[in-house]
Amino acid sequence: MKKFNTSPISGAQELLPALQQEFDRLKSEINRIYTEHGFLHIETPVIERTEVLLAKAGGDTEKQIYKLVKTNETAKDADQALRFDHTVPLARYAVEHANDLTFPFKVTQIARNFRGERAQRGRFREFYQCDVDVIGWNTLSVAYDAEVIAVLTEALGTLPLPGVFRVRVNNRKILGGLLAELDLAEYTTGILDIIDHAEKVPLDKTRDALLELANETKTQKIMDFIEICGPREDAIKQLRGMGIANADFLAGVDELDEVLRLVATMIPQEIAVVADMKIVRGLDYYTGTVFETMLNDYPEIGSICSGGRYDNLAGNYTDQKMPGVGGSIGLTRLFFVLKEYGAVKETNAQPIDFCLIPMSMDDSLMSFTNKLAETWRKSSKSVDVVLSDKKLSDKMKYAGKIAKFVAVIGENEVTSGKIRLKDLASGDEQEIAVEL
Amino acid sequence: MKKFNTSPISGAQELLPALQQEFDRLKSEINRIYTEHGFLHIETPVIERTEVLLAKAGGDTEKQIYKLVKTNETAKDADQALRFDHTVPLARYAVEHANDLTFPFKVTQIARNFRGERAQRGRFREFYQCDVDVIGWNTLSVAYDAEVIAVLTEALGTLPLPGVFRVRVNNRKILGGLLAELDLAEYTTGILDIIDHAEKVPLDKTRDALLELANETKTQKIMDFIEICGPREDAIKQLRGMGIANADFLAGVDELDEVLRLVATMIPQEIAVVADMKIVRGLDYYTGTVFETMLNDYPEIGSICSGGRYDNLAGNYTDQKMPGVGGSIGLTRLFFVLKEYGAVKETNAQPIDFCLIPMSMDDSLMSFTNKLAETWRKSSKSVDVVLSDKKLSDKMKYAGKIAKFVAVIGENEVTSGKIRLKDLASGDEQEIAVEL
Repeated sequence: MKKFNTSPISGAQELLPALQQEFDRLKSEINRIYTEHGFLHIETPVIERTEVLLAKAGGDTEKQIYKLVKTNETAKDADQALRFDHTVPLARYAVEHANDLTFPFKVTQIARNFRGERAQRGRFREFYQCDVDVIGWNTLSVAYDAEVIAVLTEALGTLPLPGVFRVRVNNRKILGGLLAELDLAEYTTGILDIIDHAEKVPLDKTRDALLELANETKTQKIMDFIEICGPREDAIKQLRGMGIANADFLAGVDELDEVLRLVATMIPQEIAVVADMKIVRGLDYYTGTVFETMLNDYPEIGSICSGGRYDNLAGNYTDQKMPGVGGSIGLTRLFFVLKEYGAVKETNAQPIDFCLIPMSMDDSLMSFTNKLAETWRKSSKSVDVVLSDKKLSDKMKYAGKIAKFVAVIGENEVTSGKIRLKDLASGDEQEIAVEL
Repeated sequence: MKKFNTSPISGAQELLPALQQEFDRLKSEINRIYTEHGFLHIETPVIERTEVLLAKAGGDTEKQIYKLVKTNETAKDADQALRFDHTVPLARYAVEHANDLTFPFKVTQIARNFRGERAQRGRFREFYQCDVDVIGWNTLSVAYDAEVIAVLTEALGTLPLPGVFRVRVNNRKILGGLLAELDLAEYTTGILDIIDHAEKVPLDKTRDALLELANETKTQKIMDFIEICGPREDAIKQLRGMGIANADFLAGVDELDEVLRLVATMIPQEIAVVADMKIVRGLDYYTGTVFETMLNDYPEIGSICSGGRYDNLAGNYTDQKMPGVGGSIGLTRLFFVLKEYGAVKETNAQPIDFCLIPMSMDDSLMSFTNKLAETWRKSSKSVDVVLSDKKLSDKMKYAGKIAKFVAVIGENEVTSGKIRLKDLASGDEQEIAVEL
């Protein structure tokens, strides 16, 4: 019957209406929490000039971006591309509109981003990210690092997550300071990378990788360091007990201490927000606080919400200091995972509140039916007037598939002003008088 | 100060937060009307396989689509591109998921589409379209043509339009039948194009263009025909009075008659829905009903909402008959126009309900402030806790720019449980007791 491949591109989410409704509900819950916390919604174009996207990113990012061309152009001269995250366009937006914004600028973006990754199950090429960010003017208190973590945590709390999650927080300055103290600053990128992967490989592999860059004493020091994780007081005590004098290290520990203290004043105490030295985040624009969020029972899923502090991102576009901090819930991937784990179910939802079936298309009948529909719609009910020219039994079958209640409208109903409303779940019928 | 061009790409809408909020409000009103009428929301990927997009479109469309390439590819081998409307992806979606959908499938899509047009003022390369469509299985009653017009009309009614609009409806079969009767069927495309532009050029130009394809008698017949417009009864009478025997012509007139009759049972009678033979619509996938909507006082804006019947669109992908009808509000362009005509104003909105300014970051003060904020958020208020390390006067200035009310929280407030709430518009202060 089909004469054409009609599947969506691989790496894209395409949902049936019932699941789409659930996806929309989660998205709107996240948006509600962000908005109630005073974050203002903006939208940037999906298409950006390539030079904007690549001003900072480089490396893997360049390979992953989707470039846009018109006939006879090649990828090389593509001067436009699809944004791969919300943070880079936000930095551009904040610089462009600086004179019209109020700082600190608390902002949310909830929309699709695009990466030309190799498609594989659970990896998406177009995906929703639900971001909050705060951009400062000259300075930005680390208290906003805490707020970003708190609001994301609260938003996660509205989602049907399987079990408990914990937020793992670190500060890039701590590791930077440690490596400087150990005279390993030149290997920072390599060591960041090793730590970033430490949870996915056996302990020995991490040690061996470090030994290629550092001697045994220093390697042991780093191995001990990345084991530090836990509640604020314990972790901070261990860090301070390492006897590192480096100023960055100490500043990082102080910031981490303060961020964790403030987060605790902002969220319910049953949510675990811990210090964790294994969290470094791949992206190179982070400069201070970094965090990831894990489901305790499903570590294999990886982080479901992450972000950090980026003091220099706007520096690609302006000399004005505009430090920022932000984080993101990757909703498309998270929704996929929730489906996989049965936390979001393919329910046989009846998305429509009422189906009204007029017995004919006569003026008087149609006017009555449509007026009744409008009355109910005014109380925010969804009402579908069945207009197909099928048999009544087919129309009832249709109503049974999509609606919660159904009523058939004939001349009797118009004359009497009374209709029989059938509950399609229970089969119960009741007569109600309608006033139009 | 800026060291980089940070403007968005030309042809994209980028709004400041206050205007974005208004844009979002209009979008959500449109969505509310669609949903209350029983249209189910879906999202298709922004990226489609190029062959899907070009299966039907051809011509200008191919020049306008944005193709996606990765490094070393050229536009020619681009197998992915950005969708240029919602209707083509919907046809693919309906075929792909046919077994899981309930027909007639009433569906809405509200999202951005993309066209690589030459950028000019008021023309957008990425733009929101707010679509409703109904897809049938085998058959689809023309009553749904009426419903699509009615729901779009109702959605337009929620927007701050300058003055009154009218919906102009036609049926492609009527002109098709007329041209067959006049033995001009082979010139259909050319004549459609001439009629499509008839309102933008002097009468003589239209006549001259027609004379290149038809003799004087036939040209006069077409010129008289395209002048037919007005309320249902008048227009239908004039059409029937033309003495055309062609079956398509008569079927088209009957459909138009029925659609206009049914629309009148669905919407308030003060909204003008008229027959108008000048409406033909450019896109070649329409097969029956076509319509456009004009603001009476601003004809220069052109159509703000349009659509039509497409009985064969899914036929590119399947042998199964899946006739459809749909229409769209081009919200980005309309919003631009509304701004231009002062119907949407750059208000100095105070988007946040409450600013709370804690006097310090001490645990007790922060806990009190955050608990208070959460209490208010539970009643759907937006509350911004000011966390910056600036002077109190700077924080008050910040609050004055973004919030409706402000309160400063110090030790006294924590101890007494009473706060002074200042109305930032009137300057009035009132003491209120808070219970946490």
